Amino acid sequence: MMRGLFDDALHEECGVVGFCSPTRCDLATSTYYALYALQHRGQQSAGIAVNDDGVFTVHNDAGLVNEVFDEAALAKLGHGNMAVGHVRYGTTGHERRLNAQPIVVNHIKGCMALAHNGNLTNSDALRSELELSGSIFHTTSDTEAIAYMITRERITSGSIEEAVCKAMHKLSGAYSLVIMSPQKLIGVRDPHGFRPLSIGALPDGGCVFASETCALDSVGASFVRDVEPGEIVIAERGKLRSIREHCHLQTPSLCVFEYLYFARPDSVLDGCCVHLARQRAGEYLADEYPVDADVVIGVPDSGIDAALGFSRRSGIPYGLGFIKNKYIGRTFIESTQETREKGVRIKLNPISSTVCGKRVVLIDDSIVRGTTIARIVKLLRDAGATEVHVRSSSPKFAHPCYFGTDIDSQENLIACKYTDEELPRVLGVDSLGFLSVENVVKIAGNSDKTYCTGCFSGVYPCPPPPPRRKSKYLTKISDCTEERQ
Amino acid sequence: MMRGLFDDALHEECGVVGFCSPTRCDLATSTYYALYALQHRGQQSAGIAVNDDGVFTVHNDAGLVNEVFDEAALAKLGHGNMAVGHVRYGTTGHERRLNAQPIVVNHIKGCMALAHNGNLTNSDALRSELELSGSIFHTTSDTEAIAYMITRERITSGSIEEAVCKAMHKLSGAYSLVIMSPQKLIGVRDPHGFRPLSIGALPDGGCVFASETCALDSVGASFVRDVEPGEIVIAERGKLRSIREHCHLQTPSLCVFEYLYFARPDSVLDGCCVHLARQRAGEYLADEYPVDADVVIGVPDSGIDAALGFSRRSGIPYGLGFIKNKYIGRTFIESTQETREKGVRIKLNPISSTVCGKRVVLIDDSIVRGTTIARIVKLLRDAGATEVHVRSSSPKFAHPCYFGTDIDSQENLIACKYTDEELPRVLGVDSLGFLSVENVVKIAGNSDKTYCTGCFSGVYPCPPPPPRRKSKYLTKISDCTEERQ
Amino acid sequence: MMRGLFDDALHEECGVVGFCSPTRCDLATSTYYALYALQHRGQQSAGIAVNDDGVFTVHNDAGLVNEVFDEAALAKLGHGNMAVGHVRYGTTGHERRLNAQPIVVNHIKGCMALAHNGNLTNSDALRSELELSGSIFHTTSDTEAIAYMITRERITSGSIEEAVCKAMHKLSGAYSLVIMSPQKLIGVRDPHGFRPLSIGALPDGGCVFASETCALDSVGASFVRDVEPGEIVIAERGKLRSIREHCHLQTPSLCVFEYLYFARPDSVLDGCCVHLARQRAGEYLADEYPVDADVVIGVPDSGIDAALGFSRRSGIPYGLGFIKNKYIGRTFIESTQETREKGVRIKLNPISSTVCGKRVVLIDDSIVRGTTIARIVKLLRDAGATEVHVRSSSPKFAHPCYFGTDIDSQENLIACKYTDEELPRVLGVDSLGFLSVENVVKIAGNSDKTYCTGCFSGVYPCPPPPPRRKSKYLTKISDCTEERQ
Amino acid sequence: MMRGLFDDALHEECGVVGFCSPTRCDLATSTYYALYALQHRGQQSAGIAVNDDGVFTVHNDAGLVNEVFDEAALAKLGHGNMAVGHVRYGTTGHERRLNAQPIVVNHIKGCMALAHNGNLTNSDALRSELELSGSIFHTTSDTEAIAYMITRERITSGSIEEAVCKAMHKLSGAYSLVIMSPQKLIGVRDPHGFRPLSIGALPDGGCVFASETCALDSVGASFVRDVEPGEIVIAERGKLRSIREHCHLQTPSLCVFEYLYFARPDSVLDGCCVHLARQRAGEYLADEYPVDADVVIGVPDSGIDAALGFSRRSGIPYGLGFIKNKYIGRTFIESTQETREKGVRIKLNPISSTVCGKRVVLIDDSIVRGTTIARIVKLLRDAGATEVHVRSSSPKFAHPCYFGTDIDSQENLIACKYTDEELPRVLGVDSLGFLSVENVVKIAGNSDKTYCTGCFSGVYPCPPPPPRRKSKYLTKISDCTEERQ
Repeated sequence: MMRGLFDDALHEECGVVGFCSPTRCDLATSTYYALYALQHRGQQSAGIAVNDDGVFTVHNDAGLVNEVFDEAALAKLGHGNMAVGHVRYGTTGHERRLNAQPIVVNHIKGCMALAHNGNLTNSDALRSELELSGSIFHTTSDTEAIAYMITRERITSGSIEEAVCKAMHKLSGAYSLVIMSPQKLIGVRDPHGFRPLSIGALPDGGCVFASETCALDSVGASFVRDVEPGEIVIAERGKLRSIREHCHLQTPSLCVFEYLYFARPDSVLDGCCVHLARQRAGEYLADEYPVDADVVIGVPDSGIDAALGFSRRSGIPYGLGFIKNKYIGRTFIESTQETREKGVRIKLNPISSTVCGKRVVLIDDSIVRGTTIARIVKLLRDAGATEVHVRSSSPKFAHPCYFGTDIDSQENLIACKYTDEELPRVLGVDSLGFLSVENVVKIAGNSDKTYCTGCFSGVYPCPPPPPRRKSKYLTKISDCTEERQ
Repeated sequence: MMRGLFDDALHEECGVVGFCSPTRCDLATSTYYALYALQHRGQQSAGIAVNDDGVFTVHNDAGLVNEVFDEAALAKLGHGNMAVGHVRYGTTGHERRLNAQPIVVNHIKGCMALAHNGNLTNSDALRSELELSGSIFHTTSDTEAIAYMITRERITSGSIEEAVCKAMHKLSGAYSLVIMSPQKLIGVRDPHGFRPLSIGALPDGGCVFASETCALDSVGASFVRDVEPGEIVIAERGKLRSIREHCHLQTPSLCVFEYLYFARPDSVLDGCCVHLARQRAGEYLADEYPVDADVVIGVPDSGIDAALGFSRRSGIPYGLGFIKNKYIGRTFIESTQETREKGVRIKLNPISSTVCGKRVVLIDDSIVRGTTIARIVKLLRDAGATEVHVRSSSPKFAHPCYFGTDIDSQENLIACKYTDEELPRVLGVDSLGFLSVENVVKIAGNSDKTYCTGCFSGVYPCPPPPPRRKSKYLTKISDCTEERQ
Repeated sequence: MMRGLFDDALHEECGVVGFCSPTRCDLATSTYYALYALQHRGQQSAGIAVNDDGVFTVHNDAGLVNEVFDEAALAKLGHGNMAVGHVRYGTTGHERRLNAQPIVVNHIKGCMALAHNGNLTNSDALRSELELSGSIFHTTSDTEAIAYMITRERITSGSIEEAVCKAMHKLSGAYSLVIMSPQKLIGVRDPHGFRPLSIGALPDGGCVFASETCALDSVGASFVRDVEPGEIVIAERGKLRSIREHCHLQTPSLCVFEYLYFARPDSVLDGCCVHLARQRAGEYLADEYPVDADVVIGVPDSGIDAALGFSRRSGIPYGLGFIKNKYIGRTFIESTQETREKGVRIKLNPISSTVCGKRVVLIDDSIVRGTTIARIVKLLRDAGATEVHVRSSSPKFAHPCYFGTDIDSQENLIACKYTDEELPRVLGVDSLGFLSVENVVKIAGNSDKTYCTGCFSGVYPCPPPPPRRKSKYLTKISDCTEERQ
Repeated sequence: MMRGLFDDALHEECGVVGFCSPTRCDLATSTYYALYALQHRGQQSAGIAVNDDGVFTVHNDAGLVNEVFDEAALAKLGHGNMAVGHVRYGTTGHERRLNAQPIVVNHIKGCMALAHNGNLTNSDALRSELELSGSIFHTTSDTEAIAYMITRERITSGSIEEAVCKAMHKLSGAYSLVIMSPQKLIGVRDPHGFRPLSIGALPDGGCVFASETCALDSVGASFVRDVEPGEIVIAERGKLRSIREHCHLQTPSLCVFEYLYFARPDSVLDGCCVHLARQRAGEYLADEYPVDADVVIGVPDSGIDAALGFSRRSGIPYGLGFIKNKYIGRTFIESTQETREKGVRIKLNPISSTVCGKRVVLIDDSIVRGTTIARIVKLLRDAGATEVHVRSSSPKFAHPCYFGTDIDSQENLIACKYTDEELPRVLGVDSLGFLSVENVVKIAGNSDKTYCTGCFSGVYPCPPPPPRRKSKYLTKISDCTEERQ
């Protein structure tokens, strides 16, 4: 599955980052760099809030990080001693600008900024309860409900962290948060730890929270440790403190799909390098579904790692199978069905000399609707491949995700529509293999760790949300941002 | 004072409009036309919310109406049976997009959209009270506080109009509101009636609320009547009902400066044509400050009406004194001090044949800081005028306004800095006259009516607000919208 | 006829300006100001070329002056000792950017920049001749042919001015040119003097050429004199010289429509103030078509001057009849027929108190297709006018213009389609009068002067061009500039 | 050397494409797709000219293909039976829009469009000669001189192809051209064949010329053959003819750097797959500079192919060394020196698990200034690599290129500044090897073929141009296009 290229790609919902520096400096630019490194976690909106001794300046908008921020925008954000940033994938275009984060609100104790990665499973109940007591909502995101919950606790709490700790008792589901108050920066991870959150140290003595370590690398921060599931880490004037009241209450359940697909290969999540995990997935695949072939290739970019693993384990040579057009951006050629069909050819071209006359093993990171992989297989056959054996480094998607990704509804999942016997014919492949759920939990290489594999197994670490409340009256916020891009 | 041209111009804070149609139709475009007619009331942001059987779609942004809305944006707003629109002048650039209206919120009973013209005098107190009970604020505008007050009353009220009525007991100051609930459109005017609000009838049986009648004209609506001070008018499926509980509690106090400066000359406010009121101001000026001269000219555009009145009463011929560059728009030449000096010459050029060798009476609608009029007088002398007698159709500004305009702080008001004897010399004029407060209240031609003349007299119809709470922690929302324009 | 507002407006083809300063200075900004003052002469493209000791820097594009130039663009043009600017109205959108001027070419002696106002009557013949000897054309404008003619003569001439003088022998029709060579700035007017060109003196000792004196005013230059018909004026290091070889060969034939419509009222063309000429047109109209009425109003903006003249001569009071929306800009509401119909109402609103119950004399500067005036008359009747008497300060258009304007083809001209008896009914007016051709030549107040009145009389000062060569193969240059605006 | 990422990247000057279809169809979109595939050959401007039965419509502008063309722009280009497209890298920003191609000119026989890849060595002489006979130049590109030369011959030639053939006698240097006349599409390659040009067949019977075969793939065309050095191929109503008068006059001299760097790996140039050629370069490197190491990695993207070759030949495992940020686009972070320093870290992050504790062979496609490779080596060491051995799949740059690329001036070339002994220390590497000139000519795998290796060897297939004429008077065309992007 080629991320961002095709209509059946999966989307992570967010990336978050926060900086706390002992001195006033250009944190807007640092946050920009970090968000640029986290761009793969959300391409629909971006935002930065800078805190200059309690004065918050914010700029959010729909678009990629380098579309939302230019030099003038960063200059206006100015210097400060704390900052929070966010990139977001939202489900509908209409709400792109509206739901852009970080959200910044005024409450009884001043300002608060929140950046959120995840998905609450009790947000409808929280909103109903809040609305019953007179609350109004400007956005449709969970984040506003979280802001309210913290604000309400703040009235009777001695500190923002105390309010956060109390509010966590009422939040269910997945949330990795970075919260900025006038004087503190707080990183929070839900008790299951569905989404990652790492801590880094800056050369100037400051600290950083970021969804992935690749963001730490981008700003020259050194990795300190991950925020633990259930932990609240408070940064204040460069010092870190921790509240561990919610830790160890739940079985750790990092989303295994972070390793397989979402995270950048150069990131290290909860102790394991993503590239290595993907390579191991390829090795397990070679064990589970061996095949007699001439070359192993990967679908760029995220099938490459597993293809190397498959090649190493199987001894079949690794080859460069495709060239991806490097100038893929926001091109309007997406917009019509006819051009979407052509899309694969325009964006991805096989290298004939690699595949012509060869039996090819093609590794992809996942197969969702199956339309993209079928097109890619056809490209290979047109280029002269004599056999095409597809291996997916993810198990079959068969169940919805409630914890911050948008796995398609079951009626669109190819694994739910066809039997194992039908699938190869439907996709036009000579053989097909999906990594087993048994092996997928081993790819991170630490047998103690437990993961959420709900989308593959249907077994969830915590109860899924009740069916969505259908409101008669909805708000959509239309904006022109799409046209402008 | 030339509106929009120079740095010492006064600014109205808003224009509002709302449509309620018996059938589903393209109200986005109608609202666009109406806002275009109200553009003079606010040039910093514009917004439209359309209600399609309870589904609200909104688009707001910084910029002029025709910058914020293009065909694609209007198409995305779509059709509906109700709509609300707003144009806004905001005090700081940072908050332009953030505070754009109408605001649309979700609350216990669904959606609500609000468009507000005016200024509360107890907003700080309201915000403090709301924050104490856990409310969070996304904007810095009064409108969000109004939304909260209505929402809170809505919980225990049988209808939105009942909630509005209850909330009005807690609001002080100036507010003309258009409120849209899923099924109703409501026009409200504060008990003093500081800001205008008119009702129009559409050919299709629908109704319109608009700050000024010129917006009714722009959409082919016929004028029905004004919303009365304190009145709540509810439009539902094309029928109008009224709640008059707050009417007649206060002395009507329409801002007299609406006639002198803010409103468009073709509008009719509370029964009086703005052009006629300005013409009468010129007639009173001719009585109060007669002069022996050859020609009467007006500062375009809003000095023209009073100049005609002065000419008719005095018998001195009216002449075309200046050409204003018709292509004045958002030109960057504003941005430097040096070019601001040149600004008058670039935007305004005297017609020599009208003034050369003549004794000129120059009528302006108001004199605030005095810098613009001094530059204009110099242009006339350079063009050969032998005498320049300036008459201001507004009395002298000497006091702040708390009801929705941004009269400058007293230290900048030229009338506060110099005595009547000094002023002509300071401005470089041969004589100078300001309309008296006694006569200004007569310009609308109805001796029964009473007006707010607080900025001239210092006598306010209701108590001014306490000094602004100085919060240690502020939120600014920076956006790039200025750069993009 | 309301300029720029409606579909039947006439368009001037160009405005030109040139600066020659004794010292190196920010002429880009000066040219910007001058073009801003000349914007009414062309709204489709704008351009500036700056000459810094022989190094030419140019920026042209489609759009208004303040759209094409922002601070960055002016900064990149940099400082210099000479500059040329141009605003253009082009006949087709496709060619907007392509034909933007000034054009800058390299030839045997270095660079040359040209800005042209007018229309050659022998350009097809010139292009054919040039093509036969191997010339290639990048644009479809006359200006490129003029550049070639000068270049060819330059090879055998001792100076650029000698080449210009020789080339003029081969050019027929209307041309006011500003030419910039590495060391000289040259102003040229064709022997008939169809289009104006004035000379101004700058405070720093430099000189300016500009289509109209309002551009001189905008940069603080004092008027020196007009370039005479047939004259070549050379500015070099602040000194002016003249070549008069082509002077007095032809009867002077300034386009009388410059006074009636094209030029700005504050400009003085060939010795006469445009405002005064228009006012006199109104006075003649009052003599030619007297009427018993209550008020005289003008169609804004260019009918105002003549309305004042009509009022003064007739004794009928002048009134403010309409408010024109000040925010008229590039609004997309133009683009559909339905909205074009609504366009009048949105852009122009009658002031009821001026016309309701009154017999109204309505003065317009010209009537071309008649659609606009008919709509305006309807507005007045809807506003309660009991009688509407229309007077046009231009004679009837009945013939094409070949000298730089785009008078509509005869089948669209209302005066060609209906008899004098039919016209009032067709336009829905109580009476109608057009200024006579006899009187129109007197409006500039100097009985010695002669004018081109070809579009009214069909009598042209020089032969019109042969019918246009119909090329099988055409070039269009499509650009996206319209979408961007 | 990472293309497009860093300041010391090399740039190809152009990519060209042309379509000739037997029927009228949407060639604008096909050309768009083809240019998108050729985008790597030029990122500064893009253009398309469509020929609809002799009517040419053109749109060119500065920017990437998907910036210059949106749906509206393509729709305006419309349908036709022929089209020409171009992408360009230009040397200075000022001239980006001005020199955008294809250029379209009118001449004696109608329209002609030209798209050019290459560089003439006698363009100064040609321009001088043309100027002496009265020609004017709008651009600073060679292409305009070529257009003139063809136009001049066209006068006395019976056909456009005859004129092209005659003109070729006067052109020296590198040129691959696509020329469109009203009825014919012509592909031309200079007698040395410096730049590639391929011919493809479309499913509808039409034909395509394109710089590289990847453009044929992108539109579903099948490869027919390459245009031969010196050949003129004429397409007319879907039929191909050939003029071979200039063939076999010179030793074929395809630029070998096309294989090493410029072309896309999936293209096949003059019979050899680029990916294979690069892989072979890696194999030769392994032979020439063997090393004892743990892992072979490539600098993405163009070092990957040679790294695979090195790995296969040496037996050292291939590993994934870096993650390149996929969202690299036009980001302003380029603009300051400080951020350029940080640029490597933001755009490229090592995968620690691949290199930590390892002896690494790092393959890059070329080393120009050396600054980028030095930064990348430092990244590897910071990530824990114990040894870094750099191998360049290009020989050392030591001489200028006159045939269409912008190899840096000699004082900046690191290979000219340091001895072989100094270089490893300067770059901070443990060992360093450049492919030999002897082997580089063998990478395309056909021992008969000859190549231009001038930039490595200083031996050129034809005389280099005389030193550039220094004109006192220059034209620069400043535009705002950079700011807008």
